Amino acid sequence: MNLKEHIRNIPNFPKQGIQFKDLSTILIDPAVFSQVIDELTERAQKYDFDKIGALESRGFWFAPTVAYNLKKPLFPIRKPGKLPGKTVQQAYKLEYGEGIIEIHDDAVNPEEKVLLIDDLLATGGTLKGSCSLVEKVGGRVAGCLLVVELEFLKGRELLEGYKVETLIKYR
Amino acid sequence: MNLKEHIRNIPNFPKQGIQFKDLSTILIDPAVFSQVIDELTERAQKYDFDKIGALESRGFWFAPTVAYNLKKPLFPIRKPGKLPGKTVQQAYKLEYGEGIIEIHDDAVNPEEKVLLIDDLLATGGTLKGSCSLVEKVGGRVAGCLLVVELEFLKGRELLEGYKVETLIKYR
Repeated sequence: MNLKEHIRNIPNFPKQGIQFKDLSTILIDPAVFSQVIDELTERAQKYDFDKIGALESRGFWFAPTVAYNLKKPLFPIRKPGKLPGKTVQQAYKLEYGEGIIEIHDDAVNPEEKVLLIDDLLATGGTLKGSCSLVEKVGGRVAGCLLVVELEFLKGRELLEGYKVETLIKYR
Repeated sequence: MNLKEHIRNIPNFPKQGIQFKDLSTILIDPAVFSQVIDELTERAQKYDFDKIGALESRGFWFAPTVAYNLKKPLFPIRKPGKLPGKTVQQAYKLEYGEGIIEIHDDAVNPEEKVLLIDDLLATGGTLKGSCSLVEKVGGRVAGCLLVVELEFLKGRELLEGYKVETLIKYR
């Protein structure tokens, strides 16, 4: 199965000139969703890790099922104000300005190895911020696993030093 | 296993006087997450349905794995501006003011039966809005499946006429 055929391209979203990759068309087809989850699960198994960190909110479409398959603990990485407990925050660079993400302060223990899972690698800002956040609380980043990569945005350069794996690449 | 013991109570979130049920403590324990997913999957199997509708964003923690287990199509129900394709919207009542949710206009076909999955039933506003949205595009609501129910908020009264099932109840 060519997974690319099951990703819908939406021109000019969220703004003029952007070709948005709509992954909801993966979810709507059980054979496609199964293949994506099974490939993510298989690749995740090659990493030595203790926990999975899921990036809000499209990372939640994929990470929980991989955690379920591998019986690994899962924690959410969210935008500010969503997590109810005590949190630790990390700022990261956006194209214009900056974003903030946070995790519960007890989500990652010192020396724990975390596999980060998200839907799509674009400029890599949020993912880099997530790596910094894991390290800020004393954890280690075992790797980053994503469904889609927009190679032309060079997110990998920002993530130099981290293992980054993606299933579907757009040049 | 008593699932209630694995839900963390956070007092005064998001505002004074609210006892917030933090379900991230389900995700962090693989045995607990497995049991929740397996119970949701088992209960979902009793319904006659074609698709699963997942409510943003904590519904995404649970619905995709149930869809994966049962090989059912899955579509997201989101806050405005998140879905990139053409959408259909539905307004619903909140305690103060109103909220809006939307789905892609091709997410549900006429006469299709939808099982809605979310994390928590409180006053039922968002869930009722989701039922109305499914019906607005010609679909039918097969049932609503949630992890937690805050019975004292009487969300079931708002959802009269719909099948609503919850795993863990707080009086």
